[in-house]
Amino acid sequence: MIKTISILVENKAGMLVRVTNLFSRRGYNIESLAVGITEKSEISRITVIVDTDERILDQIVHQLMKLVGVIKVKVLDDDAIITRELVLIKVKADSTCRNEIIQIAEIFRARIIDLCPDSLTIELTGQYDKTNALLSMIEKFGIIEVARTGKVSLSRGTDSINT
Amino acid sequence: MIKTISILVENKAGMLVRVTNLFSRRGYNIESLAVGITEKSEISRITVIVDTDERILDQIVHQLMKLVGVIKVKVLDDDAIITRELVLIKVKADSTCRNEIIQIAEIFRARIIDLCPDSLTIELTGQYDKTNALLSMIEKFGIIEVARTGKVSLSRGTDSINT
Repeated sequence: MIKTISILVENKAGMLVRVTNLFSRRGYNIESLAVGITEKSEISRITVIVDTDERILDQIVHQLMKLVGVIKVKVLDDDAIITRELVLIKVKADSTCRNEIIQIAEIFRARIIDLCPDSLTIELTGQYDKTNALLSMIEKFGIIEVARTGKVSLSRGTDSINT
Repeated sequence: MIKTISILVENKAGMLVRVTNLFSRRGYNIESLAVGITEKSEISRITVIVDTDERILDQIVHQLMKLVGVIKVKVLDDDAIITRELVLIKVKADSTCRNEIIQIAEIFRARIIDLCPDSLTIELTGQYDKTNALLSMIEKFGIIEVARTGKVSLSRGTDSINT
């Protein structure tokens, strides 16, 4: 089953390696990983999505808690989380098809963030499925390149990782 | 100087660790890291932002190229890149201040993606500075939690990592 783990760590060189190493050494496969600082610049938040069972998940959390520099670990409840990823898509687009691509982007609430005579770049946020749906709609024009961030998640409502 | 490195790697368990390990072992400090699959599901793209000089940067690229599973490494030209990060911000908001926060969010072209009686969650994309500006505008209401993805970058125009 797909599980989202939120990890607060000290914002120090080597912390990310320590966390990814733990997953790698034990053979836990990371589906997605995102890392960035939090509201406090000395603390980073790592969001890891893994496909695993309940027993292994408990082991992962237990081992993460033992790592030096890890402040807090929380498995988010699937039924009550907001998950988003950011995707940049550069697609071939000359004047003959530009309008059609812009129209498709609008339907997906995506934004055009760069334009040149032969291509345009789209910024999209959302769930994985939405990204794939947009990609499948525009792939006929010719995808030049794609960059995705990993997924970030917060619990719905007022709860936080600190409560 | 701040440099953005785009790395195409095989989408296999352990690749992320191999790359982060290289930075860690040599003491190169990662400012930001984002990883996600590309338009081809068997290939992932890792965007790493490092603060380093030209000589060290050459070394990093050279060493990355030697790693098994690394397909392509490109240092993006600062003057011609689009960089974005995604941020989720949960902020305290009751009925008395909700309107003000929504208004601020609109000015930043941010979206409200969750709402409950005592809080709301904002999704924002943009550059680092924009995120910090929004955070500074709403911190007086009480930031509950923040999750940022790392930054992703594409070169402007029709160029891609493959050309």
